Amino acid sequence: MQCPIARSLERVGEWWSILILRDAFQGMTRFDQFQKSLGIAPNMLTRRLSTLVDSGLLERNQYSDRPPRYEYLLTPRGRDFRPVLWALVAWGNKHFAPEGESMLVVDAATGERAEPLLIDARSGRPLRAPEFKVVAGPAADEKTRRRFATIERVQEAMQTQSALQKKSGASS
Amino acid sequence: MQCPIARSLERVGEWWSILILRDAFQGMTRFDQFQKSLGIAPNMLTRRLSTLVDSGLLERNQYSDRPPRYEYLLTPRGRDFRPVLWALVAWGNKHFAPEGESMLVVDAATGERAEPLLIDARSGRPLRAPEFKVVAGPAADEKTRRRFATIERVQEAMQTQSALQKKSGASS
Repeated sequence: MQCPIARSLERVGEWWSILILRDAFQGMTRFDQFQKSLGIAPNMLTRRLSTLVDSGLLERNQYSDRPPRYEYLLTPRGRDFRPVLWALVAWGNKHFAPEGESMLVVDAATGERAEPLLIDARSGRPLRAPEFKVVAGPAADEKTRRRFATIERVQEAMQTQSALQKKSGASS
Repeated sequence: MQCPIARSLERVGEWWSILILRDAFQGMTRFDQFQKSLGIAPNMLTRRLSTLVDSGLLERNQYSDRPPRYEYLLTPRGRDFRPVLWALVAWGNKHFAPEGESMLVVDAATGERAEPLLIDARSGRPLRAPEFKVVAGPAADEKTRRRFATIERVQEAMQTQSALQKKSGASS
């Protein structure tokens, strides 16, 4: 699959992996720290950590010879996942925190609450629809191009149908 | 769990659900459209769609009486997931598209490529570490506060250790 979303999801693995990354961003590096934080079985944690290492998001580093001990450090690729996590924080806070926010992104110097917003860095405008849209990129293969062609037809059909419905609603 | 990331992940369900949302953002609304796009078994798709409806991300709407037919429409809560998806597009394009970008976010009017960037809307500054950090929010319960207290201790310990290592490295 060419889709960068699908590829990202393959690499991250699954929910546990995202929670491991969350903890890694909060400074955890060691097996027992992750285990205590997540409360998952050691063999599951081992598997998740291996996936993240194999995908190049974490780096396994031996920090002690006797006894042999390892720590897991975020790679640059792993660090670049932070906007995804913080976008999840913003979405979760808005929609699934009826009792108020239990976690906040704040200015580290002043403690002031941040307001996460995705923008287009070129124009400075909020990155939202319909001002922006997703299209097939320069490296899209035949299948991806067909997919986007289908999407355009679907969107046109929906617009035509919705126009017809409005018309028929107005005349009934 | 109070963490907004964990809660978000519970609601989204799993990878398939994110790909369904991706398709919904591209204008797909009907069972057969999702099925054709994702190539998953009908019973699996039914389950994923139900989860998304139960979590309030999609709304099931009957658009035909005879035969009875349903469409799935993004709710406002579902629409608010878009920044997470577009952040995944940016991350996937950067790290998992060696052949080039097969999907791009562009300005819908000009077709110009957008550069997704997460900022703090208050100050306009890029939302990144160490300028920004995650802390316990006003609604944090005892467990969450303890968690963040532990994190601070971990971070301090790491800093002390790394300072000591540098010192011992310098003197050896």
